[in-house]
Amino acid sequence: MYTCRVFSFMKWWFYMKSDISGFPEFLPHEQIAFQNMTSIIRYYFELYGFIPMDTAAVERVHTLLAKGNDSEIYGLYRLADIDAVKKNLGLRFDLTVPFARYVSSNYGQMTFPHKRYQIAPVWRGERAQHGRYRQFYQCDIDVIADGELSQRYDAEVVLLFAEILLHIGVKNFHTKINNRKILSGFLKSIIHADQITDALRIIDKIDKITPEEFTSALRTLSITDAQISNITNFLQSEEDDNEQIINRLKKMEVNEEFSLGVDELYSLIMLLRSFGLNEKHFKISMRLARGLNYYTGVVFETVLNDAPEIGSIAGGGRYDNLTETICNKKFPGVGGTIGISRLVPMLIEKNILNTDKHSTADVLVTVQDPNCMDSYINIANVLRQNKIKTEIYLQNKSLSSQLNYANKKGMCYAIIANEDELLRDCIIVRNLKDKTQVTGNISHLISHIMKTISEHDFLDL
Amino acid sequence: MYTCRVFSFMKWWFYMKSDISGFPEFLPHEQIAFQNMTSIIRYYFELYGFIPMDTAAVERVHTLLAKGNDSEIYGLYRLADIDAVKKNLGLRFDLTVPFARYVSSNYGQMTFPHKRYQIAPVWRGERAQHGRYRQFYQCDIDVIADGELSQRYDAEVVLLFAEILLHIGVKNFHTKINNRKILSGFLKSIIHADQITDALRIIDKIDKITPEEFTSALRTLSITDAQISNITNFLQSEEDDNEQIINRLKKMEVNEEFSLGVDELYSLIMLLRSFGLNEKHFKISMRLARGLNYYTGVVFETVLNDAPEIGSIAGGGRYDNLTETICNKKFPGVGGTIGISRLVPMLIEKNILNTDKHSTADVLVTVQDPNCMDSYINIANVLRQNKIKTEIYLQNKSLSSQLNYANKKGMCYAIIANEDELLRDCIIVRNLKDKTQVTGNISHLISHIMKTISEHDFLDL
Repeated sequence: MYTCRVFSFMKWWFYMKSDISGFPEFLPHEQIAFQNMTSIIRYYFELYGFIPMDTAAVERVHTLLAKGNDSEIYGLYRLADIDAVKKNLGLRFDLTVPFARYVSSNYGQMTFPHKRYQIAPVWRGERAQHGRYRQFYQCDIDVIADGELSQRYDAEVVLLFAEILLHIGVKNFHTKINNRKILSGFLKSIIHADQITDALRIIDKIDKITPEEFTSALRTLSITDAQISNITNFLQSEEDDNEQIINRLKKMEVNEEFSLGVDELYSLIMLLRSFGLNEKHFKISMRLARGLNYYTGVVFETVLNDAPEIGSIAGGGRYDNLTETICNKKFPGVGGTIGISRLVPMLIEKNILNTDKHSTADVLVTVQDPNCMDSYINIANVLRQNKIKTEIYLQNKSLSSQLNYANKKGMCYAIIANEDELLRDCIIVRNLKDKTQVTGNISHLISHIMKTISEHDFLDL
Repeated sequence: MYTCRVFSFMKWWFYMKSDISGFPEFLPHEQIAFQNMTSIIRYYFELYGFIPMDTAAVERVHTLLAKGNDSEIYGLYRLADIDAVKKNLGLRFDLTVPFARYVSSNYGQMTFPHKRYQIAPVWRGERAQHGRYRQFYQCDIDVIADGELSQRYDAEVVLLFAEILLHIGVKNFHTKINNRKILSGFLKSIIHADQITDALRIIDKIDKITPEEFTSALRTLSITDAQISNITNFLQSEEDDNEQIINRLKKMEVNEEFSLGVDELYSLIMLLRSFGLNEKHFKISMRLARGLNYYTGVVFETVLNDAPEIGSIAGGGRYDNLTETICNKKFPGVGGTIGISRLVPMLIEKNILNTDKHSTADVLVTVQDPNCMDSYINIANVLRQNKIKTEIYLQNKSLSSQLNYANKKGMCYAIIANEDELLRDCIIVRNLKDKTQVTGNISHLISHIMKTISEHDFLDL
């Protein structure tokens, strides 16, 4: 079972055609599916009042290095200047650093709380292997405030990602939630404050390494075996439900930070229930740390119940001090990202995303008598005015080639008419799915097509 | 008048906030307008059956150099590798070269004619001045065939761009059209074949330089004054209408290439009329050459009648041999691009694009009694299920702060209710535009909001 999953996982990775390794590209029908997916995500983001943002792909190197690593950041130079390359400009490696930089430049002209989304590629100069892309898309949302930011937004972010997954048809997932204050409060009661950042980084890997590796990694921080056993005990995976875990945490007397974290976690749980999220979709886990060091409160990560091997497909958390390093001013925020470049090939593989359509058009107007071009154009125009995506076949080819084209492209209807028929105000409408056809009056049949197609919604996958 | 135009033009250029010169970014309300614009363009592209394409931003340097210039192409290196930079990967400088490369990799899995669009940024390492951006968006469409490609697609591309401009509210424009075969046929009858590419490049600049500069530029190619006078005469700007120009061209006996070009131009005119494009929106101009050397037939460029100083806002043409240099196989094509990064700031400046909205949400559900959060969430959910973009205000702020937020964001309605009102199934709906408000039953008022807002369409600017 496990090997089968791994094999299937490898297939997803290599699913996409790519000319340069690590820079994946979709075939046309996959790109249509990918775009349907981003349209739905965009729709949901906007439905909750998040507004679009589009920062430049290029940042100053010193901004990037404030949070990134020079071995994975791409710098830019003009080819003609290869003999005197300067570390000046580079490509963004995530959407959070540019967001913080943008806020620092523009906050005087923004209204807070500011809810933004950005769906855009990022670049990381890693070796392309084991599912690491060098260009991939992130779908980020963030809410930031100038002053306090209510914890209710933490719940909204978690909820919104769940809503999107449910809409897409990914039913079998859960979001692990935790609070950084609980982890760091607990660790402070056991180890030295200096060791905490490194310890959190090791805890973040707990489910990817063996217990022995976990222990020896903590030992390298000069943490004693007694302390390690204490930590391991606290982090053990558990079968208890959210209520039982919260009750146990509430009873522990560790320190103020720990208790504050427990209160925040409890509020989040209560809010997620208010927001109507089914309890099976969120699960408290003390083992969730998240790798980035800027998180200060809630952290979350969404995994697929039947494909845990692909890792998290979404994640995020609360960061109260992130912008400070970039703009000397605190804008507390909460945000998250959906890893769409990883998710979409998997959804295509599992037939959750439909890739039957090789065209955006639903209707092909065939051309039998080029002299009647005006009539064919009129028919297409009426359909288009009624929002039916319609292509006119403009090549000089036989009717059967034209119908073959419409079939290959996965269209729904072909409209067929020769000069005689057009003179009698008559067309043939062929249903390309069930291979039936009807002949009749133009405006009557156009209405029929319009009615059938407009019943489909772009939100239906 | 002219200085005033130039001033206004400079304002557009510097309209956008930018952290690094040449990498413009919009403020939130401008970004909403920009995105409305790209949504409309995308909608029209798909309405005509063009399918989305998204190539990687990164190409191999040798692919880029096949058509580009090393002084404007950005190469990539990993910051850590600065001491050993290799000319390996670079950023695309247009969307046509990546398209040709994509087709060469994937044509076995594509259906022809292939109609694609791509809306994406490109990068050019120029000095940022006089309206040259280093990152800007292109909105490209192309149709390519495996074999012959009907000239009717040339007309479709020209028409589609005009349709989009008309929809956006840009009424006062015209598309200059010409055919490369006419120009090159004519030049072959006068000068040596070797001189033609350079001569076309000079002709492309004819409206940007003085007649004296034009003459001396041609002299550098060793073209005699008699030949220059002949060329200048042929290219003189004219008041004649399309019919008169075609008739004059038809009467000229130059050579076979010239006549073929005239026939193609005439077919294009006839097709544009069939397609229903008003004659005032297209105008034959012998002075239009287009800079790129890969055009082989129709060329076109769209300019605004009352802002010619910003240059062309769209342009393109027919290229029968382009892909050959990249993939050793001919895929004749026709395509064009809309320069949206140049167009949008201008449309904002002229109030053609509406920037009143600082949020995507139309409705704000205010929160007066946090204990009633479930009710507020229910109200928002009903609106969202009916596709009304709705934000719940989740900060702990006074009602007047919340209404102030909704006003600043340009929302249409605020929903107000305290615990008593909610217990009586009652809400207040405040119309933020006309400052009226009504109190009434929840479901009754929600239906009212839904009716008012769904009458607006995303296609209404």
